[in-house]
Amino acid sequence: MPFLKNTWYVFDYADDITPERFGHRTIIDQPVLVYRKPDGMLAALRDICPHRFVPLHMGRQIGDVIQCGYHGLRFGPDGACVGMPIAGMPIPKAARVVAYPVVERHSLVWLWMGDPALADAGLIPDFSFLSDPARGNVRGHTHVDADYQLAIDNLSDLTHVQFLHAGYQASEAFERLRFKVDQVGDTVYARLTFPNGRPPYAFQKAVADIEAPIDLCFETRWNLPSCVRLRITAHPAGAHSAGAHSAGDGDNRLFESMSAHILTPETDRSAHYFFVNSRDYAVGDPEIDARVRAWQRQGFDVEDKPMLEAQQRRIGGHDVMTLGPVLLPTDAGAIRARRILAARMTAEGLPAAAADHGA
Amino acid sequence: MPFLKNTWYVFDYADDITPERFGHRTIIDQPVLVYRKPDGMLAALRDICPHRFVPLHMGRQIGDVIQCGYHGLRFGPDGACVGMPIAGMPIPKAARVVAYPVVERHSLVWLWMGDPALADAGLIPDFSFLSDPARGNVRGHTHVDADYQLAIDNLSDLTHVQFLHAGYQASEAFERLRFKVDQVGDTVYARLTFPNGRPPYAFQKAVADIEAPIDLCFETRWNLPSCVRLRITAHPAGAHSAGAHSAGDGDNRLFESMSAHILTPETDRSAHYFFVNSRDYAVGDPEIDARVRAWQRQGFDVEDKPMLEAQQRRIGGHDVMTLGPVLLPTDAGAIRARRILAARMTAEGLPAAAADHGA
Amino acid sequence: MPFLKNTWYVFDYADDITPERFGHRTIIDQPVLVYRKPDGMLAALRDICPHRFVPLHMGRQIGDVIQCGYHGLRFGPDGACVGMPIAGMPIPKAARVVAYPVVERHSLVWLWMGDPALADAGLIPDFSFLSDPARGNVRGHTHVDADYQLAIDNLSDLTHVQFLHAGYQASEAFERLRFKVDQVGDTVYARLTFPNGRPPYAFQKAVADIEAPIDLCFETRWNLPSCVRLRITAHPAGAHSAGAHSAGDGDNRLFESMSAHILTPETDRSAHYFFVNSRDYAVGDPEIDARVRAWQRQGFDVEDKPMLEAQQRRIGGHDVMTLGPVLLPTDAGAIRARRILAARMTAEGLPAAAADHGA
Repeated sequence: MPFLKNTWYVFDYADDITPERFGHRTIIDQPVLVYRKPDGMLAALRDICPHRFVPLHMGRQIGDVIQCGYHGLRFGPDGACVGMPIAGMPIPKAARVVAYPVVERHSLVWLWMGDPALADAGLIPDFSFLSDPARGNVRGHTHVDADYQLAIDNLSDLTHVQFLHAGYQASEAFERLRFKVDQVGDTVYARLTFPNGRPPYAFQKAVADIEAPIDLCFETRWNLPSCVRLRITAHPAGAHSAGAHSAGDGDNRLFESMSAHILTPETDRSAHYFFVNSRDYAVGDPEIDARVRAWQRQGFDVEDKPMLEAQQRRIGGHDVMTLGPVLLPTDAGAIRARRILAARMTAEGLPAAAADHGA
Repeated sequence: MPFLKNTWYVFDYADDITPERFGHRTIIDQPVLVYRKPDGMLAALRDICPHRFVPLHMGRQIGDVIQCGYHGLRFGPDGACVGMPIAGMPIPKAARVVAYPVVERHSLVWLWMGDPALADAGLIPDFSFLSDPARGNVRGHTHVDADYQLAIDNLSDLTHVQFLHAGYQASEAFERLRFKVDQVGDTVYARLTFPNGRPPYAFQKAVADIEAPIDLCFETRWNLPSCVRLRITAHPAGAHSAGAHSAGDGDNRLFESMSAHILTPETDRSAHYFFVNSRDYAVGDPEIDARVRAWQRQGFDVEDKPMLEAQQRRIGGHDVMTLGPVLLPTDAGAIRARRILAARMTAEGLPAAAADHGA
Repeated sequence: MPFLKNTWYVFDYADDITPERFGHRTIIDQPVLVYRKPDGMLAALRDICPHRFVPLHMGRQIGDVIQCGYHGLRFGPDGACVGMPIAGMPIPKAARVVAYPVVERHSLVWLWMGDPALADAGLIPDFSFLSDPARGNVRGHTHVDADYQLAIDNLSDLTHVQFLHAGYQASEAFERLRFKVDQVGDTVYARLTFPNGRPPYAFQKAVADIEAPIDLCFETRWNLPSCVRLRITAHPAGAHSAGAHSAGDGDNRLFESMSAHILTPETDRSAHYFFVNSRDYAVGDPEIDARVRAWQRQGFDVEDKPMLEAQQRRIGGHDVMTLGPVLLPTDAGAIRARRILAARMTAEGLPAAAADHGA
């Protein structure tokens, strides 16, 4: 399956890459090694030695260079071979590995897998809350054996929370649910409002302690390739106008949580899932950290991951949209996101999965 | 690989499906969920939600309906969608899953995967001994990574018992073995008679306690798709005319055992194996039950299953009959059964595996 | 992938095949069973019963014959069926399995998978040191999920020892390394000389106890299909003329080790690896045996095997030479060996992997 090339993919959390510990991971079918030079800057190389095709990550970092663990060829941050096994042996011109543009931003490592001339860091979506020192962030990572586009669908329709994540997040206001999807350029917003209900368990007990009826709002912001920011807010029941935008809703807010849900395709049937919960209260409280972590484990490892993987097994090698799914109004966000992705792939000359039926 | 559609496949033991516990299993490449309604009747649905293609078995049963675990769509026993995630959301016409004819008979659940108009419960072979309250039944289930047709071959030629199941069942009368195959319509009978020998271990010690020389007879009855009833009888040596049919052999019989050996294809390389041993003596004796269970475990899990799986690995993706097997007179039963299956598949317009060489 | 047929493949260590314990293994995609008759001679049969295609190794040896474990057919050392399940049942002419020429030599079992008329035991390369009772041999076996030709490359360029096996064998004389490749008929010799350096750890501590600076020499002799003899010698620094052939270097030698490194392809992506270290000092000393064993485990299981398997995963289904590897002067031995193999495969009418770029 082809993947969009000219976009920023999250490779890892930035502080997991140190001069003492490089990272390696397959991204859109390409093995990549990312390391941090002694000067603190990152470098990203294709994780294959051009001599015998072994992974460079089986070698070691020596200052600014990576030395292959098989025959000792050394490569610099720009991918050029700078050292041969035997002193005096000339370096063949072809001894070079691909180097990828790599940027550290919002506490994440972002890789550009396409044309380096187009690698504009300004295209990275805003996840600045992740590097705000005034916030408390709890993060995790899982690996999902499913097409990352199934996770786009998942994150674009949070009505699934009521069923799949019922234990933590089911709302008694679900019957009065209102939902709304907006697209601004290539950004898709989807908002669910649960008016006047008792707080779900997660906000009563697990990660907040609200008791009285609330208006609860989930708002996702989706950006290519699969980078979702989720903002959850709670207001006293009736105090929050459902029509109001989330900006400027702070006056009588009881609770706000921001989170990042970022999927990076590994292969056409597997993906890396990075998730971070970010809060502006109880920062540094290890008890709340632990509760958030338990919630994440339940939500991502126990609930979402098995569902996505079972879905992938049922779909098999098919393009899901060609199987004739019954689409619902609540799929509008996912359809928008898949259309944007398909259009961008077409623009790159790649065959794209169908975004929806006919329309 | 195509499978015969218009036939009854065993899905499970009937009392394993209760209103508190539905079953799900892949049958001829189709995932199926079977549940028991509060009124006691069974329903069978394709185990895929038509919205996002996740397995319905990851959801739950609510009275007469199954609710998808992802977004909450509800389906009734006829496959129609009867509930949507959000109150007031209209039900799309296409929101429907396939419902299969399902019948409970002889303590088994039988599924019809073909044209529902042809689903005649009268075609289910007689296994009434399985639901006879006067008998003691010990049952089991295993999963075999092999084409179910290899199990047809296995069960149609019980000379393998002498070698593969030697510990329990090898007979010192094997050298004097007589065998006979008959076909009546689409039913195949195969009979082995071991005249005048000491009882095999199974009948001396394990599940019966016969000491004196016996005439031992194994008679299988095969029906489509792979439903075998095995009747084992022992008579005092010389008392049993080898020519006599099993009916009416009860006068001086020392021992009779009936058993069911039913294979249901899962995929073209895997099958569900249901087996039940049924006796009319020591009914309810837990000591004999335990011995029968030990015998079943040895025979099916330790002996048959590894042999069939090793055979499948050797055969790989080939149609076994095209590999030029050396066929023996004792393969006559298997050839008859495979011919019947091939004829029925041809009648359904399906390509069938070769039943034998040239003939 | 096709394999060279007319060559001798090592099946196992000879004394692992006894009348009480036959061996079975897949060699160039063919399952083979080797057994030792009561008279001490070996026999080799295709490990598939021609009746139902189950592995013969699931049966048992009875004197000179192998009896199938499914229905009891018996086969003699020439592959002919010599016994049927039922007394008096005629033996079909086609009931026969392939028998392979098999030879016991140099403590190894050698199989000929091609035209039996060409099976000349004189073609077996000389590994007579393996059966020299005056020597101490420590042997092992591992299984590698990689094309055996990757192991040809590995063994033909021992500069990898400096990086992959650094802990035991890195030499401080590596910077002064000299290497030389010679071809004599279809035999390829490759020699590495490390002049005037402190002995690597292996020769200081692990398997010898040399302290003073040495001239160290590694000389491999490669024969088809992938049979390598490695001779390691150490002389006092300066005492060993780098130009001299290894023959006749014994006068002032400090140390000599001989070893066998033999790869037998199982499939196109997996191989059996037999390795034996042979020494002429401390013969029978269990402490040195244990140290050699630890060295072998580290070198083969911990270092070579994961590297070859990672290399195979990176290469996937491609012919490595078509991927455009950057070749170095030190690859000369591997290129020679691959050329010889390719020429021999072409002579057998088989498509061969490319041996190198263009040349």
